[in-house]
Amino acid sequence: MLLTVPSFMTGVGGVGSCVLRQLAFLAKNCRSAELKLCYIAMIDKALYTADYTGLDIDTALEALESNGQSPPTISFIADYLSRAPGSTILIDNTAANVIAEAYPLFLSQGINIATPNKKPFSGSYQLWQNIQDAAKSGKFHVFHESSVGAGMPIISTLNDFVQTGDQVTRIEGVFSGTMSYLFNSFSPLQGKSAQWSAEVKKAKELGFTEPDPRDDLNGLDVARKLVILARIVGIPVESTSSFPVESLIPQELANIKAADEFLDQLPQFDHRMEAIKAVAEKNNRVVRFSGSIDVSTKKLKVGMEMFDRSHPIALLKGSDNIISFHTKRYGTKPIIIQGAGAGGEVTAMGITGDVLKILARIC
Amino acid sequence: MLLTVPSFMTGVGGVGSCVLRQLAFLAKNCRSAELKLCYIAMIDKALYTADYTGLDIDTALEALESNGQSPPTISFIADYLSRAPGSTILIDNTAANVIAEAYPLFLSQGINIATPNKKPFSGSYQLWQNIQDAAKSGKFHVFHESSVGAGMPIISTLNDFVQTGDQVTRIEGVFSGTMSYLFNSFSPLQGKSAQWSAEVKKAKELGFTEPDPRDDLNGLDVARKLVILARIVGIPVESTSSFPVESLIPQELANIKAADEFLDQLPQFDHRMEAIKAVAEKNNRVVRFSGSIDVSTKKLKVGMEMFDRSHPIALLKGSDNIISFHTKRYGTKPIIIQGAGAGGEVTAMGITGDVLKILARIC
Repeated sequence: MLLTVPSFMTGVGGVGSCVLRQLAFLAKNCRSAELKLCYIAMIDKALYTADYTGLDIDTALEALESNGQSPPTISFIADYLSRAPGSTILIDNTAANVIAEAYPLFLSQGINIATPNKKPFSGSYQLWQNIQDAAKSGKFHVFHESSVGAGMPIISTLNDFVQTGDQVTRIEGVFSGTMSYLFNSFSPLQGKSAQWSAEVKKAKELGFTEPDPRDDLNGLDVARKLVILARIVGIPVESTSSFPVESLIPQELANIKAADEFLDQLPQFDHRMEAIKAVAEKNNRVVRFSGSIDVSTKKLKVGMEMFDRSHPIALLKGSDNIISFHTKRYGTKPIIIQGAGAGGEVTAMGITGDVLKILARIC
Repeated sequence: MLLTVPSFMTGVGGVGSCVLRQLAFLAKNCRSAELKLCYIAMIDKALYTADYTGLDIDTALEALESNGQSPPTISFIADYLSRAPGSTILIDNTAANVIAEAYPLFLSQGINIATPNKKPFSGSYQLWQNIQDAAKSGKFHVFHESSVGAGMPIISTLNDFVQTGDQVTRIEGVFSGTMSYLFNSFSPLQGKSAQWSAEVKKAKELGFTEPDPRDDLNGLDVARKLVILARIVGIPVESTSSFPVESLIPQELANIKAADEFLDQLPQFDHRMEAIKAVAEKNNRVVRFSGSIDVSTKKLKVGMEMFDRSHPIALLKGSDNIISFHTKRYGTKPIIIQGAGAGGEVTAMGITGDVLKILARIC
């Protein structure tokens, strides 16, 4: 079977280049299909072969850098991919809304999708519904394991619960590697605790935050992941604005433009974070930034919570994520999955794993 | 598409009846296939329809009890299933060697398999190889998620690592719910520790052990699970006799016939277990019964180990399992999955999830 694997890439050095390396491995080891990379793009450049001969995966990024042209329109891309011989998989490594909104179009044209992009699944409920409908009606596939917890089996496990008829009652966890790192230092189980603003600054310097740390501190990344999980268990959450999301950006600093100025002013508000930590310590607890979904009340919540020192969330280390699923079958004790929830290679693994799942279904 | 789902059952009240309930849910909710239960059997009875009309899943067990006949031969069953219209899935809920040995025959006749049976994958390496070859050559599927960790995504996660090109370096964990329960009480993190023999007796009374607790204490259940995982990462382990497996049955009691007599005599050997615990406590550690695979040296090991009190294995509670995967991509910190590793409903969930995976591939 001839299988073309067109791919959108976010650029050199990120998740995209790791995906390319893993695709090269797949292409060499896949017995059920001939994998071809026919289309590759970054934000301002695209490279593709008009006759669907494959690009050399190992050198595709360099070729894109040197020979890429302005990217064509979405409708051109959809048309191009839908005419490919054999089945097609679109690997969307972007976080772009414009591509997210085109998912129903891609799926309706017979293009399968593997992606870490959270936007298609955490944007408007209508878009999510359109994506599900388009996938179902054409029996095409859209997988997005890496949209929550990177390469960890979070989405697939939740799908297994739902599809085998278990009742998920509660999902709780630390869904952000950045928040995990910050709070594990700010409110540690043992040893000296760090000053909040200094820890944020350090995390940025170490590359553990987004280029602008406020994109982590506003809680939206965690909120998006909760929306994705909630919809899988049947809660029709409209958007990330439909439930309480605690932002760690002080109200007074809401209108500051530059990230550096924000970081300079943040120490003025350390006393607020200290006060919260003091309450936790008085109760022999630690502070963590967590997200939870209570399925029976359909309530989602993102923000700081206090946890007993023996709670699995309190015991988390480094920048790891932890997600616990409480279900009827598992009774009083949840099933817990923890590990790195960010990073190029592990995020790429979730995507490559999705490509494998699609291959298993179409070959 | 017409899909027949013949099923071997181990009997009322066990995993089998949970599988039946979950299959009934699947049959009602599956849009891609018409699921039919055409064959059901327990050790001394079988019931099937000559013309492949489905049995009523909700009442199949009662019908088997009252109308079941002596089971036919394996070759008759393989022939019967292979002639079914549409695709066929065999759900083997037994722990039987005789059925395990017939897997290559079933697969070569186009019958897909979902099973918690450890024997086919932890028996002789030749049998395992024959099963893989038969599945690959016919493009039929054999899934056995529940053979390790019941419904937890252990096998599927490990397969993802291997198939996407990650290098698994070490697998470690507590693979037995019974051993977890025993050691969490015998060598607890906090509070009063229990006497070993009394704890074994209590666990048996609570139904946490096999009918004969020695079937847990000999370590073979853990060893079988390690063999299954090791072969997936490419280590050609010949059998459970190929590596050190520590048995907790004192040599002096090896020849006792009755389980009750064994339990009566076990207290004489409590001092040995106490001595081991004393060494652990002196080093501020706890004792756990764990299994590990060191992939680079191809060394497997099953037995008591001492763990720092902050180690995830030491922090495990109740009768939970925990499995940690160290891989090249995940670097210094493993991905960890923990939760109930035994029980009818959660074991059945792994099997039903496997049925779903097969359906996705054949419909």
